[in-house]
Amino acid sequence: MMAGNTFGRALRLTTFGESHGPGLGGIIDGCPAGLELTEAQIQAELDRRKPGQGPTATKRKESDTVRLLSGVHEGLTTGTAIAFFIANEDQRSHDYGNLAEIFRPGHADWGYFQKYNGLRDHRGGGRSSGRETAARVAGGVIAKKILARRGVKILGGCVELGGVAIPHWGLDMEGAALRPYCAAAPSVVSQWDTLVAEARKAGETLGGIVRIEARNVPAGLGEPVFDKLEGTLAHAIMSVGAVKGIEIGDGFAAAALRGSQNNDPLLPADEPGPGKARFASNHAGGILGGISSGQDIILRAAVKPIASIAITQNTVDKEGNAATVLIGGRHDLAAIPRVVPVLEAMTALALADALLLQQRMGLGA
Amino acid sequence: MMAGNTFGRALRLTTFGESHGPGLGGIIDGCPAGLELTEAQIQAELDRRKPGQGPTATKRKESDTVRLLSGVHEGLTTGTAIAFFIANEDQRSHDYGNLAEIFRPGHADWGYFQKYNGLRDHRGGGRSSGRETAARVAGGVIAKKILARRGVKILGGCVELGGVAIPHWGLDMEGAALRPYCAAAPSVVSQWDTLVAEARKAGETLGGIVRIEARNVPAGLGEPVFDKLEGTLAHAIMSVGAVKGIEIGDGFAAAALRGSQNNDPLLPADEPGPGKARFASNHAGGILGGISSGQDIILRAAVKPIASIAITQNTVDKEGNAATVLIGGRHDLAAIPRVVPVLEAMTALALADALLLQQRMGLGA
Amino acid sequence: MMAGNTFGRALRLTTFGESHGPGLGGIIDGCPAGLELTEAQIQAELDRRKPGQGPTATKRKESDTVRLLSGVHEGLTTGTAIAFFIANEDQRSHDYGNLAEIFRPGHADWGYFQKYNGLRDHRGGGRSSGRETAARVAGGVIAKKILARRGVKILGGCVELGGVAIPHWGLDMEGAALRPYCAAAPSVVSQWDTLVAEARKAGETLGGIVRIEARNVPAGLGEPVFDKLEGTLAHAIMSVGAVKGIEIGDGFAAAALRGSQNNDPLLPADEPGPGKARFASNHAGGILGGISSGQDIILRAAVKPIASIAITQNTVDKEGNAATVLIGGRHDLAAIPRVVPVLEAMTALALADALLLQQRMGLGA
Amino acid sequence: MMAGNTFGRALRLTTFGESHGPGLGGIIDGCPAGLELTEAQIQAELDRRKPGQGPTATKRKESDTVRLLSGVHEGLTTGTAIAFFIANEDQRSHDYGNLAEIFRPGHADWGYFQKYNGLRDHRGGGRSSGRETAARVAGGVIAKKILARRGVKILGGCVELGGVAIPHWGLDMEGAALRPYCAAAPSVVSQWDTLVAEARKAGETLGGIVRIEARNVPAGLGEPVFDKLEGTLAHAIMSVGAVKGIEIGDGFAAAALRGSQNNDPLLPADEPGPGKARFASNHAGGILGGISSGQDIILRAAVKPIASIAITQNTVDKEGNAATVLIGGRHDLAAIPRVVPVLEAMTALALADALLLQQRMGLGA
Repeated sequence: MMAGNTFGRALRLTTFGESHGPGLGGIIDGCPAGLELTEAQIQAELDRRKPGQGPTATKRKESDTVRLLSGVHEGLTTGTAIAFFIANEDQRSHDYGNLAEIFRPGHADWGYFQKYNGLRDHRGGGRSSGRETAARVAGGVIAKKILARRGVKILGGCVELGGVAIPHWGLDMEGAALRPYCAAAPSVVSQWDTLVAEARKAGETLGGIVRIEARNVPAGLGEPVFDKLEGTLAHAIMSVGAVKGIEIGDGFAAAALRGSQNNDPLLPADEPGPGKARFASNHAGGILGGISSGQDIILRAAVKPIASIAITQNTVDKEGNAATVLIGGRHDLAAIPRVVPVLEAMTALALADALLLQQRMGLGA
Repeated sequence: MMAGNTFGRALRLTTFGESHGPGLGGIIDGCPAGLELTEAQIQAELDRRKPGQGPTATKRKESDTVRLLSGVHEGLTTGTAIAFFIANEDQRSHDYGNLAEIFRPGHADWGYFQKYNGLRDHRGGGRSSGRETAARVAGGVIAKKILARRGVKILGGCVELGGVAIPHWGLDMEGAALRPYCAAAPSVVSQWDTLVAEARKAGETLGGIVRIEARNVPAGLGEPVFDKLEGTLAHAIMSVGAVKGIEIGDGFAAAALRGSQNNDPLLPADEPGPGKARFASNHAGGILGGISSGQDIILRAAVKPIASIAITQNTVDKEGNAATVLIGGRHDLAAIPRVVPVLEAMTALALADALLLQQRMGLGA
Repeated sequence: MMAGNTFGRALRLTTFGESHGPGLGGIIDGCPAGLELTEAQIQAELDRRKPGQGPTATKRKESDTVRLLSGVHEGLTTGTAIAFFIANEDQRSHDYGNLAEIFRPGHADWGYFQKYNGLRDHRGGGRSSGRETAARVAGGVIAKKILARRGVKILGGCVELGGVAIPHWGLDMEGAALRPYCAAAPSVVSQWDTLVAEARKAGETLGGIVRIEARNVPAGLGEPVFDKLEGTLAHAIMSVGAVKGIEIGDGFAAAALRGSQNNDPLLPADEPGPGKARFASNHAGGILGGISSGQDIILRAAVKPIASIAITQNTVDKEGNAATVLIGGRHDLAAIPRVVPVLEAMTALALADALLLQQRMGLGA
Repeated sequence: MMAGNTFGRALRLTTFGESHGPGLGGIIDGCPAGLELTEAQIQAELDRRKPGQGPTATKRKESDTVRLLSGVHEGLTTGTAIAFFIANEDQRSHDYGNLAEIFRPGHADWGYFQKYNGLRDHRGGGRSSGRETAARVAGGVIAKKILARRGVKILGGCVELGGVAIPHWGLDMEGAALRPYCAAAPSVVSQWDTLVAEARKAGETLGGIVRIEARNVPAGLGEPVFDKLEGTLAHAIMSVGAVKGIEIGDGFAAAALRGSQNNDPLLPADEPGPGKARFASNHAGGILGGISSGQDIILRAAVKPIASIAITQNTVDKEGNAATVLIGGRHDLAAIPRVVPVLEAMTALALADALLLQQRMGLGA
């Protein structure tokens, strides 16, 4: 698409809304009829992304109450376009007012200023805000439901914060959603508490790594040659504000393996039969030749530290002169854990889109 | 798009062709009129990707001679669709014939088999072949020319092979194209020679990491919110067969930095003025908030080892029974360096597409 | 697009909403920044489409109050996605309740029933309702504003009702918007009054022909070869519910002309100069070879009679048995004049889309 | 799509090529695997469009020999992109050379000149040539095959030439393909012979009306709300060069009917059952509410007279000064009958696209 507010081919999410306007929302087009869908279900997932929760959170309060505007009748999707809206509530515009004349390092300010011909418009302030991700989460609920009908489940968890990683053997993805930091292991939480306390005292912010697993994914998703599943998943994940890297399966580590180490041997299935097999390992992260293999899809996203630090920084003003900036307002100390449901949502949107496409392709003529 | 053979929005590349049919090619739609374009220019870039060159190469010979079929008149593009064709020449189908009954570990065989309803069709063999990337390279030549008119230059080099990396301070991207392995530093070549010799003897294959730099990119490219430049670049790069990870700027390393370390401070430009600045560092890899900042765009792609090893592997046959496979034929020992021009091409296609889109958006109504 | 709720390439309108849910609305993506836009402006155009007005209207009342949800700040568009919402108010679902078991002749009932696998879902009732066109009109306001910045003006008027046509020499398009029936000439109004009175007494409905003129359209709009301006305009106009035909310029009459009669000779402009000319006639309706010529674009749309007649009709029920149906409820006697602003809106959306695309294409690289 | 060389959503045809370059061709993406397809089958359809046949034809000779470049193996489609190429042979560029300085009335010259910034480029000459329709016909062969698997058959015939129409009761669509002019009735041929002889003597050209019928179309094709089947068919048909109007079913005549006359009553099927019915008439032309009803789809296209007349015409030159032009070269006297297979092809492409989309949509999740 030319205008960048739409994601997907068979299942399309178009979003709108700024952080300081009436609200934000979106339209899901292409959702099959007959799915159970309630505002409460979307609300539950939005609440996972809501500010003001956990050790890394801002104190900003937003109730983020979602309203369904179309496409659902008596609790079931009708097959028509599903629109939803989340009104803005807690807007303190003056918190940001003093930043109109300078560029905040690490923020979208500079790029938007250059893109829109020097117009320091609200498009930047509005659309580059992390708040737009609420619409992704709402859309992701529908994608997760489409996937759930096929038994696919998406799990997200934080596996590294501020450079302190969970060892691979200690992963517990199932429990992540309920832990502080959405941590993918219980052991690391107290270490991370210490890190966060130190960072907060220093006015610093932290980055981390999020792991997403998609379980029970049917084999055959992805389209040769440009829409390999790695390509569409990478697009989905890398379109989220703070993400600067993605790897599938062993990813960058695979670059250091020998072929015999990296290949995943096939073994007969427990109940062998034509077209049935299991894999002895999953270095590929569930995708072979761009097509899902039937193994779990595993990806990791690198999340940079929040750009809004409480430390005076060098920058320039709109006239190009040297300036300093100390950012006030209320900001998260890390995108983690709030980014986790967003990355789950984007994974779900990419996979549900591929699933609907494959179901259709599978039919032939 | 539903069918996955097209990449791009304003500049669209649609490719076709199998490794064992008449040939392969593509159509570029959306190229402006008036660009100089000759078959020789495309040929030069194709020759960089051609098999049979360098220490990691297969001995397979393909002349890969390109022919322009439309869209160019008297050496200039006319603004119409540009079609090109590369005939296949060296086809030894019998080399692959004995693999029809089993699934090669690490290959697309399994995914395609599952995708196309158990049909072991030639779609897999043909379209999952690395040979399709020749059409990407041809398309990339046109993208590079569009970029060059704006002074943008794309450089690619190998920075890690078989786990042996070039230290960041030793990079020499300008010289990479002429070195063995497309190595981004001279010092590492002899080490890599040793690695490759050992691997060849062991029947093994190697992976590595490719670095791409785009220099002199104008600020303002990328579209909020789903088509951030990170998203479209990631889609482009991760759609190439052996790539399992991508990072922009510091990428995964950024996840371990503090905010004050990762932010790139702005400083007055050498000749200060409104909307002018320079950056003190480039942790962001040239993209802020999804929009190009005017700094060099820097990305790294993780390339897995070639799946075709010369070692007997466990697998299953089509009936689901245990089997072993020893892959013959002529295969590269590493996707590096042949993948380098392909990744340059994909970077160029993504950036030229964003550039044309921004030029158009920039006009307003 | 796979899902059909989006229209446009550079300027994209995605709509949602059913006649008996919370409401309807849409998102415009791709609108340039800096356009003046208020709810009042949209409201004025919606009021032209509102039911309950004029001799052919239903007595149903809908206030159709529009609310802007995003993309506008201090009265100016910001370049971000513009969302709008129109709440439903006057819903008498029971009026339609007794029709659940049979298929109304001439309605979408049958096609939707077949399309959605025998599911008599609300998708049909909802999305096939003429009420969805309110979102088109709202989107069209934005398109008209984009066009107005280039001086383009869209005029619509009814030129035939119930078989009684206005002669071509009597056209007065400027006054149409203010006349009963949106009539393109004053002389015909009393004749049409008589026709409508007779039809109403007989329980009948009427069709007609709408003429749209786009004045001051710049030359050069339209894209070879599939997106000729005739093609995209035809798609736009024929996507409106009751329209069964479209012709550009002389259209079907041109099929009976000789070449020398149909060609529009070029003459020197009043102030001659390179690339300047005027045309001696406009048989082509302002489009030559799929590209706008700079003359007025003229099209005519055939509008069928409303399917809901107040006469007992033969049909079948869901079991396939013979049945009769007498449709109650409140229905218009003709789609005219309410369809006129809808057709103006679709013309404006198609032309504004082509204009933005051409501005972008015109830049080259 | 931004660039206009692609048609379709699920089944996508992208074409390229100019009348005076190496040749023309295209890529079909989205074709299911397993269809029988040979070069001979495409050739047979191309031969119907070939110049030099029948009373209205130019004497220009082009063998139009098609070559399949990909996507077909052992006579069966493989599911990959199908590319085809038709080399140009009989190019007499000098026939057109003397027209470089003036604008031919009724031709694309003027629009292309305005579109491409005064550049009288070969894009115009090349892409606006009727020769590009050969690629449509080749693509249409594949679409027809997809439809034929579902029993759908496309018939085209000429029903009016130079103002002399075949009465509706005299139609014989089955025999049209074998008659001169592709005439939809035998009786009219001698009249048309006389017309053509007179026109040729006068240096004139003729227009006409083509009727297309699609038989045995499954109910349920078309997507609410913008991609109603009327909309996508109209886009397809009106994208063909000489077409200035389209109507579905009764079309413009329906505008003069009463509702009770225009509605098509439903009757019990011969073997009644749930969801089964037949229609007493087909005023709707097989499409209700934008969705195919299961009746034959019937459309009529208005074809303007060929612009190249053998009579001196007034025009202007590139400097804007008055000039006259007498067009030489070899030109058809009417687009009929050669446009008939083109319109069949576009109908087939639109319907096959809708069919593949519906099959996919029909699955749900």
